[in-house]
Amino acid sequence: MRAVDLIRKKRDSGEHSRDEIDFLISGYTRGNIPDYQMSAWLMAAWLQGLTRSELAALTEVMLCSGEILNLADLRPRKVDKHSTGGVGDKTSLILAPIVAAGGLIVPMISGRGLGHTGGTLDKLEAIPGFNVNLSLLDFRRVLRECGMGLIGQTAEIAPADKKIYALRDATSTVESIGLICASIMSKKLAEGIDALVLDVKTGSGAFMKSEEDSVRLAEVMVETGERMGKRVVALITDMNQPLGCWAGHSVEVAECIEILNDRGPADLRDLSIELAAWMFFLGDRTRSVDDGRLLAESMIVSGQAKEKLKQCIHLQGGDEKIVDQPEFLPAANSREHVLSSSAGFLTATDCQQLGVALAMLGGGRERKEDFIDHAVGLEFHARIGDRIENGQPLATIHYNSAAKLAEAKALIASSYQISESAPDEAPLLIHRIIGG
Amino acid sequence: MRAVDLIRKKRDSGEHSRDEIDFLISGYTRGNIPDYQMSAWLMAAWLQGLTRSELAALTEVMLCSGEILNLADLRPRKVDKHSTGGVGDKTSLILAPIVAAGGLIVPMISGRGLGHTGGTLDKLEAIPGFNVNLSLLDFRRVLRECGMGLIGQTAEIAPADKKIYALRDATSTVESIGLICASIMSKKLAEGIDALVLDVKTGSGAFMKSEEDSVRLAEVMVETGERMGKRVVALITDMNQPLGCWAGHSVEVAECIEILNDRGPADLRDLSIELAAWMFFLGDRTRSVDDGRLLAESMIVSGQAKEKLKQCIHLQGGDEKIVDQPEFLPAANSREHVLSSSAGFLTATDCQQLGVALAMLGGGRERKEDFIDHAVGLEFHARIGDRIENGQPLATIHYNSAAKLAEAKALIASSYQISESAPDEAPLLIHRIIGG
Repeated sequence: MRAVDLIRKKRDSGEHSRDEIDFLISGYTRGNIPDYQMSAWLMAAWLQGLTRSELAALTEVMLCSGEILNLADLRPRKVDKHSTGGVGDKTSLILAPIVAAGGLIVPMISGRGLGHTGGTLDKLEAIPGFNVNLSLLDFRRVLRECGMGLIGQTAEIAPADKKIYALRDATSTVESIGLICASIMSKKLAEGIDALVLDVKTGSGAFMKSEEDSVRLAEVMVETGERMGKRVVALITDMNQPLGCWAGHSVEVAECIEILNDRGPADLRDLSIELAAWMFFLGDRTRSVDDGRLLAESMIVSGQAKEKLKQCIHLQGGDEKIVDQPEFLPAANSREHVLSSSAGFLTATDCQQLGVALAMLGGGRERKEDFIDHAVGLEFHARIGDRIENGQPLATIHYNSAAKLAEAKALIASSYQISESAPDEAPLLIHRIIGG
Repeated sequence: MRAVDLIRKKRDSGEHSRDEIDFLISGYTRGNIPDYQMSAWLMAAWLQGLTRSELAALTEVMLCSGEILNLADLRPRKVDKHSTGGVGDKTSLILAPIVAAGGLIVPMISGRGLGHTGGTLDKLEAIPGFNVNLSLLDFRRVLRECGMGLIGQTAEIAPADKKIYALRDATSTVESIGLICASIMSKKLAEGIDALVLDVKTGSGAFMKSEEDSVRLAEVMVETGERMGKRVVALITDMNQPLGCWAGHSVEVAECIEILNDRGPADLRDLSIELAAWMFFLGDRTRSVDDGRLLAESMIVSGQAKEKLKQCIHLQGGDEKIVDQPEFLPAANSREHVLSSSAGFLTATDCQQLGVALAMLGGGRERKEDFIDHAVGLEFHARIGDRIENGQPLATIHYNSAAKLAEAKALIASSYQISESAPDEAPLLIHRIIGG
């Protein structure tokens, strides 16, 4: 088998066998196939697509390139959630404590933010002392003790994905449904989970702007997971405006604690409960999704989820007093309102632009090596459909450095679209794609 | 400007500006853009295509990556011919002496054979002592003294093409009309020519199997040449069977000398005269192509072309006595006939397969570093449309090593298609594409 022939095959829309995918991916991971051949293949795969069976093979080969957590010694089912990312998308820090408090194991291996989206690992690092770089051995110990754990991708997990992702980033081959699916699923399946709930974001703040692309991505991820013997559901959810009222790092941790205190914005609470309910159901903890919702709510109302979060923070070296006293989270020095310059109804936001503004203020990174200011945040005062008065604050910027304040402010102001007539109401949960 | 953004642009069918093409190609040639980004871009360009203006820019940037011969001190017009390659395609060694004898300058920079096709440089090296590796200074001297010269691509000529071609070869991005055009034209225009005649082969022995692809390639090459201020014509010619009666190295040199002696097969003579006629006409040596034909014929009949060839061989260090005594060319030890196993009319040949059989016997190379046996050759006894008897020799193999003789013989035998009814007559010259 020669790499050059496999590149030609994909270029000419051919379908690879499992052996061919293995030859390419294993060969590349071991350094037998050079970057320049892999990148030509990636571009061919980007443009010609991958079939379902190629995708299953790709996911499996990437998964098997590293260690797969074996959590068989822990009795309860292991479940996780993965979101494709957005602005203010912070459900992981709410869900994991709810589902762990409800009796399942949640072994979350998360990522960092890039571009306009935030990342769970970065948010956790806003908590003083919190260590996301546990060894797999320590991760296993934390899971055993509190049923949940939150770490970053280690060198042992899907090394093929790590190497291929870096190459995709440098060669404009990131946004391919097939390659995204294989990348996500190979990492998630390495967690040794029984079931997975996917939150596929769609809209102006998501990577997939169209509902059609989001549904396609959701379908291939569900099918790929099912082929690997997992129970998988995908919820297609709205990302045409930020989720909840805050975007940033400290501020999002604080907002999650608000939800666990049975307060906070309805959209964030509703979506968190919906996702948790599916985790309970797929993890065989409840007999229906409705029962899952009730269990999730009771974990909030009883305070058990909040206690679970404290326990996890403590076990991962963080200062758990921030749960009761969020004022110990890093806070920004200054604030600046962004006022509306017209009256009417808020009909749309350019949600990606809001994320870019946050990154501009230090609350996100353009490149992997950029430093993040965990204290910076955006507070959103208006939701789509709200009646807006002229001069009313649309958002508040919480900042430390004024360097790019004017630029960020202008970007935020231009992200809001205000019209005379009210928009149609748009649901938060758009679609549900269930495997099998 | 960033390479990753330009890759994305081509991936998404965008059109590059001249500056963008320059950034990519110059950056790659200088080593600022890594192989893996260039190969992703090449695959995107392969699959999405290049527009006419991108092609012109690509050709120009590749041309300007190296030296451009300035032959302004030589009064006559400079003209050349380029063929896209085939089996038994040997017109260069006939044309160059005819056109130089007729008073124009023919600065031919040629290539080597690869796969099933032969290369002019390899054929020249069948002539004892002939040096194809002249410096540009020596090349210029030979051109001044005899009006023609035949060398290989030097390091100074289109270095961008050399580097990109090696990468294309390793990443299955060779057979793209745009990339082929830029590669050919950048090298040919570096010769400092005023006019170029293109012989675009079509059929079973050509790189372009379909007439449609051949016409498209011819059109873009003609347009690209015209944009660079050159007079260009493309003849689309038949390559469904070998040109002339011989394929190999020594044997093709000998067949060219036959033509210059006013003998030899009609198809080879006719095509050579046609191509030479266009070179005379585009080089302003004659007022019409018809006059060009007459001039070409007179150069053969008068023996002037043959004398010109002798002069050139001598100036390039070769033994010119082979022109009068071709028996001094390396010859094979043994011969073997390939007989027809049926009777009827020869309706088609798999011409590429004949080229592969020749390479198998040592008369071609699979990889660039392979050694060539210049003495090996195939002699063809039948042309499409001929009446064939059972047991009649279709071809004769002239070989030195019997190692792959049986395999080659079987391949040759299976290349001939014999049927009961005669095929339609197919013209040698199929199309003519004239610029402007």
